[in-house]
Amino acid sequence: MKLEGDRKVRIVEVGPRDGLQNEKTILATPVKLEFIRNLIGAGCVEIEATSFVSRTWTPQLADADELWKLLPEPGIYSALVPNEKGLERALNVGVKRIALFTAASESFVMRNINRTIQQSLDEFAKVVSMFRDAGGKFVRGYVSTVIECPFAGKISPLEVSVVSQLLLDLGADEICLGETVGVAVPDEIRKLTEVVLKVVPVQKLTYHFHDTRGTAIANVAAALEFGIRSFDSSAAGLGGCPYAPGAGGNVATEDLVYFLERSGYDTGIDLAKLAKASLPILTALNLPVASKAQRAILAENQTC
Amino acid sequence: MKLEGDRKVRIVEVGPRDGLQNEKTILATPVKLEFIRNLIGAGCVEIEATSFVSRTWTPQLADADELWKLLPEPGIYSALVPNEKGLERALNVGVKRIALFTAASESFVMRNINRTIQQSLDEFAKVVSMFRDAGGKFVRGYVSTVIECPFAGKISPLEVSVVSQLLLDLGADEICLGETVGVAVPDEIRKLTEVVLKVVPVQKLTYHFHDTRGTAIANVAAALEFGIRSFDSSAAGLGGCPYAPGAGGNVATEDLVYFLERSGYDTGIDLAKLAKASLPILTALNLPVASKAQRAILAENQTC
Repeated sequence: MKLEGDRKVRIVEVGPRDGLQNEKTILATPVKLEFIRNLIGAGCVEIEATSFVSRTWTPQLADADELWKLLPEPGIYSALVPNEKGLERALNVGVKRIALFTAASESFVMRNINRTIQQSLDEFAKVVSMFRDAGGKFVRGYVSTVIECPFAGKISPLEVSVVSQLLLDLGADEICLGETVGVAVPDEIRKLTEVVLKVVPVQKLTYHFHDTRGTAIANVAAALEFGIRSFDSSAAGLGGCPYAPGAGGNVATEDLVYFLERSGYDTGIDLAKLAKASLPILTALNLPVASKAQRAILAENQTC
Repeated sequence: MKLEGDRKVRIVEVGPRDGLQNEKTILATPVKLEFIRNLIGAGCVEIEATSFVSRTWTPQLADADELWKLLPEPGIYSALVPNEKGLERALNVGVKRIALFTAASESFVMRNINRTIQQSLDEFAKVVSMFRDAGGKFVRGYVSTVIECPFAGKISPLEVSVVSQLLLDLGADEICLGETVGVAVPDEIRKLTEVVLKVVPVQKLTYHFHDTRGTAIANVAAALEFGIRSFDSSAAGLGGCPYAPGAGGNVATEDLVYFLERSGYDTGIDLAKLAKASLPILTALNLPVASKAQRAILAENQTC
């Protein structure tokens, strides 16, 4: 979490978790590990590697325990933990950084994890307490649907701010705001950021954009204006959300790195290596290259 | 060209020309006309419909004369005209709005139209004079490679400014700055815009972005800050440039309209209709839906 100077940007790669969780073709653990090794080799430092969620509900990540034990060094890895049961599994394999999930929309939380926001926060409190007692180091609190909810419609910045404050009060080390549906434009991100920064210190705030309608990079640019220097992304733009109809993938790490580096920010990531990092996954899932920057880099030696 | 208020944005649809010119599968004229009718039906007012270039060099647009005569009313149509010969053809079918092409990079102009910039401007002068004498109404001057040239590398804002000034002196009604290679980030667009606005009045300036690396919408957002309210785009993100290795398509009209309308600007375009406008072309060329907003709209009734 140390940001060295104003031009240093932290990128949390969420491809192995958020990018893969909804893919129906179950990938073998070695394929995921190759992906993660490639990401580390490209300079990705922080990776949300998996989720200790129900194996029945998310079969793609059923290998979380096994995968965790095989993660390559060096790397700063975190895992999503939905509840106490998930935390027990995570602690068993030595997880030191966890991410907990709630949202600004009551109906989204209900449909997603079958709880009210308050129930999710109560669970959160128990998990954080257990985690700290076991020597856990870092807790991320996700607030999803920060602009719009597929079920409840528009969300106000105040709703996001309230949930963020509650997560901080419960001991979250950072707040990650998820623009789950991928509808936002920069003006909306500015309004939201202004309100949220009244309760969340800027160095504890991360944005998690989905690029469903092509606005994610413009939204990153807007967040940078406020001094936010931490963003989630997914290599090759992998991922989506099963509970948000029509939602596309996360902002592609390649697009994000291209934009940031060309704008004079330092991500520490080698774009040429990054562009190839996801190829084993794309091949295994039979997906086309979805990131524009990635496609451009892979095509750079060809004529169009 | 009348812009009613600060929130009104003019979009020039260049899909039928810039979007198609490099596609190798030659489309029948009725397929192009269906595309154009769909665009008009979606509320696109201004369309660059074709180019009166050499039929040998650009066989896709060899039907320019025939197509022009069949264009549906109402619509504001323009055509690219490379030289006097092209203008003669254009005038023969009643073209009243033309676009002329040069670039800020000497080597790009040389490789593209086998002339120096000065020679392109000399030709430009003759064409404008002939065009005005024949009752021509509107002349757009394209300045391509405004940020980077695939052959000469970085281009300075001053080079762009000088060529823009010369085009205005020769009688251009507007200047269209083409970010041909699709490499720019907002800071570069800000620096360029500041310099160019010293010679080009803001209401005569249009930006033509390519979304090769996913930065086009962020660049539009930067240009809007300066009061620029005119942008080119291509439905479905069709198009690219044969002389710019690796360059992808134009910014997608769907992405542009989504971003602008959600940001409170008025484009006059119906996004739901627009999302379907290019489907006959995509089918005929066997291309996937490339615009993120278009894909999201077409998928809105599905779950991801």
